[in-house]
Amino acid sequence: MSKPLILVTNDDGISAPGIRTLIAVMQEIGTVVVVAPDSPQSAMGHAITINSTLHLNKVSLENAPVTEYSCSGTPVDCVKLAVNEILKQKPDLCVSGVNHGSNSSINVIYSGTMSAAVEAGIEGIPAIGYSLLDYDWNADFETFKPYIKKIALEVLQKGLPDSVVLNVNFPKRKEEELKGIKICRQAKAMWEEKFDKRKTPQGKDYYWLTGEFVNQDKGEDTDEWALENGYISVVPVQFDMTAHHAIQQLNNWNLNN
Amino acid sequence: MSKPLILVTNDDGISAPGIRTLIAVMQEIGTVVVVAPDSPQSAMGHAITINSTLHLNKVSLENAPVTEYSCSGTPVDCVKLAVNEILKQKPDLCVSGVNHGSNSSINVIYSGTMSAAVEAGIEGIPAIGYSLLDYDWNADFETFKPYIKKIALEVLQKGLPDSVVLNVNFPKRKEEELKGIKICRQAKAMWEEKFDKRKTPQGKDYYWLTGEFVNQDKGEDTDEWALENGYISVVPVQFDMTAHHAIQQLNNWNLNN
Repeated sequence: MSKPLILVTNDDGISAPGIRTLIAVMQEIGTVVVVAPDSPQSAMGHAITINSTLHLNKVSLENAPVTEYSCSGTPVDCVKLAVNEILKQKPDLCVSGVNHGSNSSINVIYSGTMSAAVEAGIEGIPAIGYSLLDYDWNADFETFKPYIKKIALEVLQKGLPDSVVLNVNFPKRKEEELKGIKICRQAKAMWEEKFDKRKTPQGKDYYWLTGEFVNQDKGEDTDEWALENGYISVVPVQFDMTAHHAIQQLNNWNLNN
Repeated sequence: MSKPLILVTNDDGISAPGIRTLIAVMQEIGTVVVVAPDSPQSAMGHAITINSTLHLNKVSLENAPVTEYSCSGTPVDCVKLAVNEILKQKPDLCVSGVNHGSNSSINVIYSGTMSAAVEAGIEGIPAIGYSLLDYDWNADFETFKPYIKKIALEVLQKGLPDSVVLNVNFPKRKEEELKGIKICRQAKAMWEEKFDKRKTPQGKDYYWLTGEFVNQDKGEDTDEWALENGYISVVPVQFDMTAHHAIQQLNNWNLNN
């Protein structure tokens, strides 16, 4: 089998330690092309750039045979540009991350890291988003290298179900405290926002968004449970957002009378 | 029953004709508070503003008793600020739109309009996103007022299933050509990107994102089918993105050996 072509992206920006770890692992597996934002794009969700121009720059951040581009757009823009402009063939795998911070439960919907993986999935490319529950720029990514590799190899070997991508989160634990990998569902959780209201030097109000994470879900099959208990969580994520179970109920409404 | 409190937002910006139509209809139903972006935020997906400040301005665009705020952030920011800073009570309904352009099928995931509705849903507020398949600034929104009202009243009266919001799309048709309202699933469709590559006056490459919509789904229970055949499509949308059907398959992988 020839070496797989692997597209690497993220949302923390091309120089973040998390993506550098991911690139190092992927180089052990295949031919790596990096297309990542030139600046942090956290919490960009599935945003795309339609009212502005996009810029690509070929860069060289590794002392290694890796093709790298920094992009002025969002993580989703990076995937679209990579697939449609840069790569001559569809990649065998797209990996996004390793994100500095959690993308478990409801965070999947705000996450630029996961949106890049989802975009690859929409384009028919097997895709994995990786995140570490540690916002520190110098977080310990080294511990998780074997797990990153194992999951990527498994996806390359077995493939993923149609229209499904993986959301992998690592707990902030030492190697000896890790209990293994657990397939999970997304916990039902949310952010309770608190806005930090301040005044500009000119006396005008402005706000910073802050908030507190609230997990309302006590299930032991959730990603939140797994992470709290020392497991690496893997949630299969789909982009058919239809609430199929609700269709029958809505059909009983009198919308056409 | 006292008048319901209705939060109105959109992604085309507070002065767009689409939101003006929505405000007019909602005033017939309840007490309206508008918190909408001060500039177009199309295709912002579920982006939130965490690395920058947010600004709110009380504005008055209607000759009517409507409280309105323009916000410097994304549609999701607007909902968060409305719920946590502006409103003294949780609204009975959140409506987003009417979007200038389709949010059917996969567009739901890129759409700022729908992300605002989804955010309201995450916060436990019944929510509806409305879109018209016409990008024209002066599109005919008038035709759809009775349908906007009917669906909103039905949601207020019956409530929505837990963790479900509605994605309503109107076909670009005249009143007499409309066949009614159809409950649908999201069609499996995607955008095939084409990047328009240009050169700056300084000779550097840059790109505009363009693309062609491709519907791979021949099902007659999809939103795309409904819209093509003159129906108003209503898709129940959930924000649990877990591919529950894939969990068993992944459990057969050898991830822990």
